[in-house]
Amino acid sequence: MTLIEIFLSEMFGTAMLILLGCGVVANAALGKTKGNNGGFLMVNFGWGLAVFAGVYVAFASGAHINPAVTVGILVNPDSAEYAPGASITLATTLIYFAGQMVGAVIGATLAWLSYKRHFDEEPDPAAKLGVFATGPAIRSKGWNMVTEIIATFVLVFVVLMFDNTPSGLGPLAVALLVVGIGASLGGPTGYAINPARDLGPRIAHALLPIKGKGTSDWGYSWVPIIGPVIGGSIAGLLAPILSASAGG
Amino acid sequence: MTLIEIFLSEMFGTAMLILLGCGVVANAALGKTKGNNGGFLMVNFGWGLAVFAGVYVAFASGAHINPAVTVGILVNPDSAEYAPGASITLATTLIYFAGQMVGAVIGATLAWLSYKRHFDEEPDPAAKLGVFATGPAIRSKGWNMVTEIIATFVLVFVVLMFDNTPSGLGPLAVALLVVGIGASLGGPTGYAINPARDLGPRIAHALLPIKGKGTSDWGYSWVPIIGPVIGGSIAGLLAPILSASAGG
Amino acid sequence: MTLIEIFLSEMFGTAMLILLGCGVVANAALGKTKGNNGGFLMVNFGWGLAVFAGVYVAFASGAHINPAVTVGILVNPDSAEYAPGASITLATTLIYFAGQMVGAVIGATLAWLSYKRHFDEEPDPAAKLGVFATGPAIRSKGWNMVTEIIATFVLVFVVLMFDNTPSGLGPLAVALLVVGIGASLGGPTGYAINPARDLGPRIAHALLPIKGKGTSDWGYSWVPIIGPVIGGSIAGLLAPILSASAGG
Amino acid sequence: MTLIEIFLSEMFGTAMLILLGCGVVANAALGKTKGNNGGFLMVNFGWGLAVFAGVYVAFASGAHINPAVTVGILVNPDSAEYAPGASITLATTLIYFAGQMVGAVIGATLAWLSYKRHFDEEPDPAAKLGVFATGPAIRSKGWNMVTEIIATFVLVFVVLMFDNTPSGLGPLAVALLVVGIGASLGGPTGYAINPARDLGPRIAHALLPIKGKGTSDWGYSWVPIIGPVIGGSIAGLLAPILSASAGG
Repeated sequence: MTLIEIFLSEMFGTAMLILLGCGVVANAALGKTKGNNGGFLMVNFGWGLAVFAGVYVAFASGAHINPAVTVGILVNPDSAEYAPGASITLATTLIYFAGQMVGAVIGATLAWLSYKRHFDEEPDPAAKLGVFATGPAIRSKGWNMVTEIIATFVLVFVVLMFDNTPSGLGPLAVALLVVGIGASLGGPTGYAINPARDLGPRIAHALLPIKGKGTSDWGYSWVPIIGPVIGGSIAGLLAPILSASAGG
Repeated sequence: MTLIEIFLSEMFGTAMLILLGCGVVANAALGKTKGNNGGFLMVNFGWGLAVFAGVYVAFASGAHINPAVTVGILVNPDSAEYAPGASITLATTLIYFAGQMVGAVIGATLAWLSYKRHFDEEPDPAAKLGVFATGPAIRSKGWNMVTEIIATFVLVFVVLMFDNTPSGLGPLAVALLVVGIGASLGGPTGYAINPARDLGPRIAHALLPIKGKGTSDWGYSWVPIIGPVIGGSIAGLLAPILSASAGG
Repeated sequence: MTLIEIFLSEMFGTAMLILLGCGVVANAALGKTKGNNGGFLMVNFGWGLAVFAGVYVAFASGAHINPAVTVGILVNPDSAEYAPGASITLATTLIYFAGQMVGAVIGATLAWLSYKRHFDEEPDPAAKLGVFATGPAIRSKGWNMVTEIIATFVLVFVVLMFDNTPSGLGPLAVALLVVGIGASLGGPTGYAINPARDLGPRIAHALLPIKGKGTSDWGYSWVPIIGPVIGGSIAGLLAPILSASAGG
Repeated sequence: MTLIEIFLSEMFGTAMLILLGCGVVANAALGKTKGNNGGFLMVNFGWGLAVFAGVYVAFASGAHINPAVTVGILVNPDSAEYAPGASITLATTLIYFAGQMVGAVIGATLAWLSYKRHFDEEPDPAAKLGVFATGPAIRSKGWNMVTEIIATFVLVFVVLMFDNTPSGLGPLAVALLVVGIGASLGGPTGYAINPARDLGPRIAHALLPIKGKGTSDWGYSWVPIIGPVIGGSIAGLLAPILSASAGG
């Protein structure tokens, strides 16, 4: 693949992910929507199926649509390439990150446009920020970081295991995994588990002319970046322990 | 395929889609049903699995069961035919639309018959219309149109990507996609994302002897027609950008 | 297959179906359970996954586990046999029905034993009967029959379409179909869509020493028998219309 | 496979299962989480998808991640080996149990760390124990045992049937089965259906420095051990009845 093909694939895929992911939070959290108070399981399915759609769109580039996945593959000693025809180099790595970040900003902007009138009528600035970026239920940056590390470890570790197990699920496997991570480990921090998923929409929140918006909460913004990078790295380093016997 | 085979396939499939789709709204919205207040996620799964059933029924004709899908394929420069044996001509295009519209009216009528006594006892005309046609949570035709364009773009664009990604999901892929679109982008307008899904049942609402029915709200009726046609067209035009690298 | 193999297969499979199906209703409806008031979508998934388990168990005999499915295959002019090695004769037909009925009584009994203490402490006889047999939300035998006919038509017609569409879903296809029928068409009557599902547990309700039980409501019992038989028959008769073009 | 490979595979897989499984209960039950009061269906999906992730991780060793499954295979006269390359001997059986128990303790510890601040702020000791170990809705050890026997029978019996039925579901089949067992039979006891799932976290609860924790309720602890072992054994012994005709 060329660098531009990788960039477009990850950009479109991550835009799809963030459009649908931020969309379900808007539906659950903003006033007067048809899914208002639809429940946490609706949010979990919304994000899981956002991954589902994003993976179909970004299939050509291996559908990382998440820098923590890219990092996990990068540090995994068994990795041969990022995707068929996409070798692991500094240039491709940076192109993956760039496509993911640009796509995330686009996706968040489209989600805002989809719910434009509901943003206009929502009085609570925190509800508006919550559609874009994650925030902890109990603020405690150290423990919030622990949660993000563990949850992202689960995501990247199981994704790296997929190749060992035959199934015909295709993109559904990672979609369901994300539904499960959300239901099980999303309670304390809202499960960023993806630096682009949090930083991209937070940038969009800061830039867009959202009526009555408040702070973009930059003080918390590094937790859902650093945590997922650490969790994904641990997953990439530990994966060979199990893959050896599975592939043997 | 003959034109009559296409017509019957799309008619039966769209009737199945609308019977189950309008059915789940009736279950959630009308009084005294067993699923009353069953939640927006139940409605999302109901519509998604309505697509699931409809796609099995209309498999022979490619299971469009949605004029926006037909239009997306029509404008996609990569499209070879509508389905195996169904070439892209003016006649087949019109037959697809005709089968979809007739099927939608039949399906809505069957949904009404299934919930006949609940319609009879429901005092609110708006609840009755809501079983048939979509209506916006905040009426603003311009922004409602934006939402329908974006949501239908997601549907048709991802459907066009399906062929690039191997999986054994069959009709489940589009069913889950519709669950996700509903949860994520259904909040503002109730996600028509299909002109036949909205216009067919609205015609049925106008024609059927529904006890205590009110207006069919024709003033809004063009939004869920034009929006999906625009969204599906954009998807068909943009799809080749990604398919080129995926198929290469 | 021998007649005894068919009998055992359908008996075990239908017992599994009814154990899990009546179980989820007990969980939702009886007092003090962990799933009390778990919502209609939980009930829909419970019944759908009850079918899932039952189909795996009864796979050898084609997994009818529903006399309406057996009837639909019987009247379908395209049917060659009930399952590989199970020809369509009067003897096999009766053995299918017998296995289904015996299994349904066994399954309902196991569901009662699973929730024994919750039955003992539940004061409402109607809640207890509701775990076993279906009952209409608005009693109107004619319209209740219409609902059962339409819902069972959907089940059997789509099941007969499965063979035309390639997928790797196996028993998941019919499971999801039943989730969808429940969400969409279960509102008025609680979707028997299977004569054995209703009659078997109703017999168990009448026979078992359930503490504080009331009437078994035999006056309604023929609706969820006759309706599904009619709906399944219509499906079997109409299926060839679409299968011809799909298979051609 | 070597014994250490079996141990690591079952340990990692069961740790994944228990991390996500105890996690979803923490999300639903502890105060201030984002999934607080998310409903029983969210808990069912959380546990089902915990199995999904665990099975991918432990695929090399056959993904028992449950001593009741190991026992069911052990007593099944048709069983040839535990997994490709893992013969059925006393040593491998004990290694399966050891990996499962160690993994369960690790998983429960990680779940506690993920929700650390929510445990700290939760005033109710029973809610904290409920994250780790199961407890009956109505305490009645005899009937609670009956429920666990029946529910575990369903799990192991259907798992043993999977091989007879072609599908491309891979680990999704058992995941959905566990969603269904939870929804249908989880009401009275919270469905341990796995001795390691209950005993491992209960040991973790006893050992960890959980703020304000109460009793570990050892008086009930043998029910979710003995019940699942009995249920799994009955399943293993009865499975050949149906497998004979399915495989014939």
